[in-house]
Amino acid sequence: MLDLQPLLCPRSIAVIGASTQPEKVGGVPIRLLGELGYGGRVFPVNPGADTVQGLRAYASVADIGERVDLAIVAVPAPAAPDVMAQLGQAGTRAAVVFTSGFAEVSGGDALQHALATQAHAHGVQLLGPNCLGAMNLRERMFATFSPIPLSGVPPVGHVGLVSQSGAFGAYAFALAREAGLGLSHWVTTGNEAGLQVADVIEWLANDPQTQVILAYIEGARDGMRLRRALAAARAAGKPVVIAKVGTTAAGASAAQSHTASLAGEDAVYQAVFDEYGVHRAHTLEAFFRLGYTLARGRRPAQWQSPSGLAADAVAPVAIVTVSGGVGIMMADSAETLGLPLPPMPDAAAQALRTAIPFASTANPIDVTGQVVAQPQVFVDALANVARCGQYGAVAAFLAGGVNAPRLWPVLQDTVSALEAERHAAPLLISGVMDDDKRAWLEARGCLVFREPAHTMEAVAALAKAAAMEAAVSDDNRAPDLPVPSPALPPDAAALSEAEAMAWLADAGVPVVPHGVARNAEAAVDLAESIGYPVAVKICSRHILHKSDIGGVVLNLRDADAVRAAFGQVRQAASQARDTGGQAVPFEGAIVARMARGWGEIMVGVRRDPVFGLVALAGIGGTAVEIFRQMAFGLAPLSRQRARAMLTQSRAAALCTGHRGHPAIDLDAVADVLVNVSRAAAAMGDRLDTLEINPFIVGPDGLAAADAVITLR
Amino acid sequence: MLDLQPLLCPRSIAVIGASTQPEKVGGVPIRLLGELGYGGRVFPVNPGADTVQGLRAYASVADIGERVDLAIVAVPAPAAPDVMAQLGQAGTRAAVVFTSGFAEVSGGDALQHALATQAHAHGVQLLGPNCLGAMNLRERMFATFSPIPLSGVPPVGHVGLVSQSGAFGAYAFALAREAGLGLSHWVTTGNEAGLQVADVIEWLANDPQTQVILAYIEGARDGMRLRRALAAARAAGKPVVIAKVGTTAAGASAAQSHTASLAGEDAVYQAVFDEYGVHRAHTLEAFFRLGYTLARGRRPAQWQSPSGLAADAVAPVAIVTVSGGVGIMMADSAETLGLPLPPMPDAAAQALRTAIPFASTANPIDVTGQVVAQPQVFVDALANVARCGQYGAVAAFLAGGVNAPRLWPVLQDTVSALEAERHAAPLLISGVMDDDKRAWLEARGCLVFREPAHTMEAVAALAKAAAMEAAVSDDNRAPDLPVPSPALPPDAAALSEAEAMAWLADAGVPVVPHGVARNAEAAVDLAESIGYPVAVKICSRHILHKSDIGGVVLNLRDADAVRAAFGQVRQAASQARDTGGQAVPFEGAIVARMARGWGEIMVGVRRDPVFGLVALAGIGGTAVEIFRQMAFGLAPLSRQRARAMLTQSRAAALCTGHRGHPAIDLDAVADVLVNVSRAAAAMGDRLDTLEINPFIVGPDGLAAADAVITLR
Repeated sequence: MLDLQPLLCPRSIAVIGASTQPEKVGGVPIRLLGELGYGGRVFPVNPGADTVQGLRAYASVADIGERVDLAIVAVPAPAAPDVMAQLGQAGTRAAVVFTSGFAEVSGGDALQHALATQAHAHGVQLLGPNCLGAMNLRERMFATFSPIPLSGVPPVGHVGLVSQSGAFGAYAFALAREAGLGLSHWVTTGNEAGLQVADVIEWLANDPQTQVILAYIEGARDGMRLRRALAAARAAGKPVVIAKVGTTAAGASAAQSHTASLAGEDAVYQAVFDEYGVHRAHTLEAFFRLGYTLARGRRPAQWQSPSGLAADAVAPVAIVTVSGGVGIMMADSAETLGLPLPPMPDAAAQALRTAIPFASTANPIDVTGQVVAQPQVFVDALANVARCGQYGAVAAFLAGGVNAPRLWPVLQDTVSALEAERHAAPLLISGVMDDDKRAWLEARGCLVFREPAHTMEAVAALAKAAAMEAAVSDDNRAPDLPVPSPALPPDAAALSEAEAMAWLADAGVPVVPHGVARNAEAAVDLAESIGYPVAVKICSRHILHKSDIGGVVLNLRDADAVRAAFGQVRQAASQARDTGGQAVPFEGAIVARMARGWGEIMVGVRRDPVFGLVALAGIGGTAVEIFRQMAFGLAPLSRQRARAMLTQSRAAALCTGHRGHPAIDLDAVADVLVNVSRAAAAMGDRLDTLEINPFIVGPDGLAAADAVITLR
Repeated sequence: MLDLQPLLCPRSIAVIGASTQPEKVGGVPIRLLGELGYGGRVFPVNPGADTVQGLRAYASVADIGERVDLAIVAVPAPAAPDVMAQLGQAGTRAAVVFTSGFAEVSGGDALQHALATQAHAHGVQLLGPNCLGAMNLRERMFATFSPIPLSGVPPVGHVGLVSQSGAFGAYAFALAREAGLGLSHWVTTGNEAGLQVADVIEWLANDPQTQVILAYIEGARDGMRLRRALAAARAAGKPVVIAKVGTTAAGASAAQSHTASLAGEDAVYQAVFDEYGVHRAHTLEAFFRLGYTLARGRRPAQWQSPSGLAADAVAPVAIVTVSGGVGIMMADSAETLGLPLPPMPDAAAQALRTAIPFASTANPIDVTGQVVAQPQVFVDALANVARCGQYGAVAAFLAGGVNAPRLWPVLQDTVSALEAERHAAPLLISGVMDDDKRAWLEARGCLVFREPAHTMEAVAALAKAAAMEAAVSDDNRAPDLPVPSPALPPDAAALSEAEAMAWLADAGVPVVPHGVARNAEAAVDLAESIGYPVAVKICSRHILHKSDIGGVVLNLRDADAVRAAFGQVRQAASQARDTGGQAVPFEGAIVARMARGWGEIMVGVRRDPVFGLVALAGIGGTAVEIFRQMAFGLAPLSRQRARAMLTQSRAAALCTGHRGHPAIDLDAVADVLVNVSRAAAAMGDRLDTLEINPFIVGPDGLAAADAVITLR
């Protein structure tokens, strides 16, 4: 982990290019640090001035006469690399470079490289260039040229915010201020010549002031750094909310023109986020709402994550409403999110029915408009379900009821009482209410929303956070299975099918019975021992698209057919050419049993340029192109992730009694995926792609009927 | 259409059960009508009082001495039917019944029936019982017992709001008031013993005061009434926004316990909404946002609906942003919604680049944070794209820029200028701003949102509304094809496969070559003339599940195989029993050509209990159960709807060059679906279900390989 203490908690700051005009890029930080109460020392560097905004100015950083923690750099781009060298020589530990005109403009790459090289050579931590800077709200440290803190600062809190985009960061700052969302740090990374968003996430994961991390990214330059950062946050039990934009082709194209980031494939980002339990936001509204929810919301005591994946965690929820109609909307939302709605306990239901005979005591619990006349009945229902131990959370819809003069005092009594009870389920309230009442409720641990459906999304997010904080990831490791370690052919660009099958079988992947025959009679002998029907296929490292050249004959039912097929395959091989245009020596043909089953699953592993090995799985055959419902996961897979992939891609439906076929053990199928991913991972840097298409799904589970492995 | 004038625009109102206490159910309406300025006459009816809240009271409605338009009924439930009879005898034209204790409580059905019978017998228009009443905001007519109008009333406007649920209606009223959304009428329908939501929608569709209709429903009692109402709104060019709750199993179960409505299948409701261009909201927030958008938003001049369906209408949009990051989020949202983002015109791009060299002139158009220094450049870009004629709408993200002292005046100038230009594209602005600035922009035809993604959803909704208003539905009729009209067997519960195939063929549905054979040699002759391979199948009105009893043999390649198969099928038939347990006479076997293709499509028509005949289509085979991606449409289908169903279900992917197969004409395939739906519709009330599974997809298009038609 990089130490960002000098950057984010500096004891002294030099401003290089400090301006006497407080509205200039080099003047704003001097003004902010002065006016907003930064406690450390500030050294303006400006060779043309004796003082800058009332502070003694220095001609150069060397003249300061002491080593400063942080330099803010606001000099023209061409001067920046030299300034960086001077900073390094003066022992400056970190630098924020505001200046633009680097890699974000055409021809600016070389200058950025020079800047980064100087920073690296002198061990200066570099934030930027072309960034809006950083803030530490507790320390009143405003190393930014945005004047936005002058019009108000959010409260000091526990949310750390980091954004690749400066404009996004500034807007997020304004929204946090407006919503009263407490921030710990605010960092924009700009061109990321030095620090990346991932580095800041990792540092915040270890920062005791930060409990929740909000991050905006367009793309990760270094996927492994991001994975390490997210793993650190997960290990620290700190939820991470990410707005990753460029999810569509239009968005990705816009992202590419906006920064030099590699946008990458969104499904792979999603697999990374799933792996580390990241909360993903697709809109600004959701980004802040998740931040609010996770920063302020009590966790459901009863979360349930049957799969062991935090992403699948859910909590049973009680809906208590004054409008049956809104209750139904909330129930729809709960079901969509997978939140169970167990019925109200009998005693509580009886009490409610006695007080209001036409109330609905199912879940949603509808106290009806009678709440106006009998407010105590409503809060009693609320308290009963919160205390009964059956719910992870209680979501109430009160319409305008909080403002009702008779309801408010009894609601206050109930909320105060529940707040003191450790085992009461957390309360989420929706409706319209005055700001002071909202603040009162929030101060007592309630979350408050206008939109009733948002209470459900909040419960889902809190359950996921609770599951992560409870470190369910301990149960989430890959089963310990043998991994193959035979040597790979050093110069080959691929394995032959027989080699690929052998590698997989060694890794515990079931493959159809097969063998390699060098002549027709050997093929017949093999077929007889394997049992009909069989397939006969060219076997060569140099021919990957066997069927395209007539190198595959299927469904052979007797010796004559095998003989004829062998001849056909051999003939096809004799005309084949490798990628260099050379004839391919005939190494034999695979004779393989035609496995019987009722469906096909495709499993692959490929090398993502950003995040490394990624596994994918889904229903095989024509469904691959038609429904495009492949699921992704980082390789090697855990069993839980493999199971989740089977469910997400609907491949699990083939295993659970599809069309009257026997059900097969889904954990065993998941383990096959795990083993495929481990076989791929065991090839290390050599692996390019691995594809098993199809796995036949039959009564004995999966059996790989074909495999292609290409190497680098 | 029912005439709701007496209910919603009454010249006189009697309140039956009028209370001297203004907070009682029978007292609130007297107070509201008096305090809020209703202009008509009000007659309290209370036999125990001389005056009620300062008005002369009457002992009975007959004592009033004149015929009143509307009666508000707030008497105990058991008295309500008699009161209704008295109202009818006095010539009262409409009645709002607040009273609860009818069908919504167990045992209350009979009382509700008695109430409805009296209303019907005397020709009294009945709203309720168990409803919160109705309002006409222009007429200051508040026939409700909710005290909510006392704390303020929304402005008079053009949005008509109707809700089955009273509590939902009251909350919606409060939210409309808070948002300043102008309402024309507000109606809650409660138990719907008389008027249904559909009746109110239909009346609002013809009401000149109403331009947009917002409706909340849990279920439609009478689907055809709802369809007629939605058709009326479409014909009037008035957008309808519907919050239909109970979309999930949990929600539907909650809805069923909340009212007596038939929840029905959500996919069928969605098909109805698609058919009539209804805007659907799944949250309260979206419900009001759509209302705001459609009530205030200028329509894009350039909408494009390639399919001819309003639901598919899109408009090209220009995104102008001060944050590249937010621009990417907006581009993602645009792509998800199918909104094209054509590039900025060259001249405008050149002007922007000249002013701000590092601005992005692609679309999203990123003026960058430089907007602070050069606000005129931003508004020039805005005006250029609004005027260029290439965009249906312009969506701007300004962060906090509207509040910036330098930007605001130039933005005002530009917005004022554009407002006067008829051909300028409408402007949608997102960001944070003061309420007065927001109001200023809205008064000049701009829509304002906090969430940038909401501008995109608004453009999509406006494009859809524009398409509907332009009556594209004229091009949206079913092609005029012959419809079969042979007599149906009067007592049969099903057609035999041969009869079903004949009925379909007569309707222009391609079927595989086939015939019926009564003995083995006739079967062989048929097979020889049709060409091998063939299938042999039992043909009987009494045996629908042929393959379950061994009555289907496929892939027969020669005469011997056909002979043997005929024997097997005949044997199977001899053991079959009809639903009454009787032996089934052997009527022969179908001999049908095994059509060759590369995929299977399933098409069906069934009778929905609420909405009538509904067609469904999707990929056949195992995909039906695994991906559950069937698409629905009302039968008979238009060609456009059939095309949309092929796309939604992904069946179109089989037709457009799937895996190297030749592409087949999608319009021709859509016409096959149309003809199937017309064949079903031609059976009128007799049709129960029709299912063609599979249609073989091959080089010549579709061919039905099996068909089942069951009758009522």
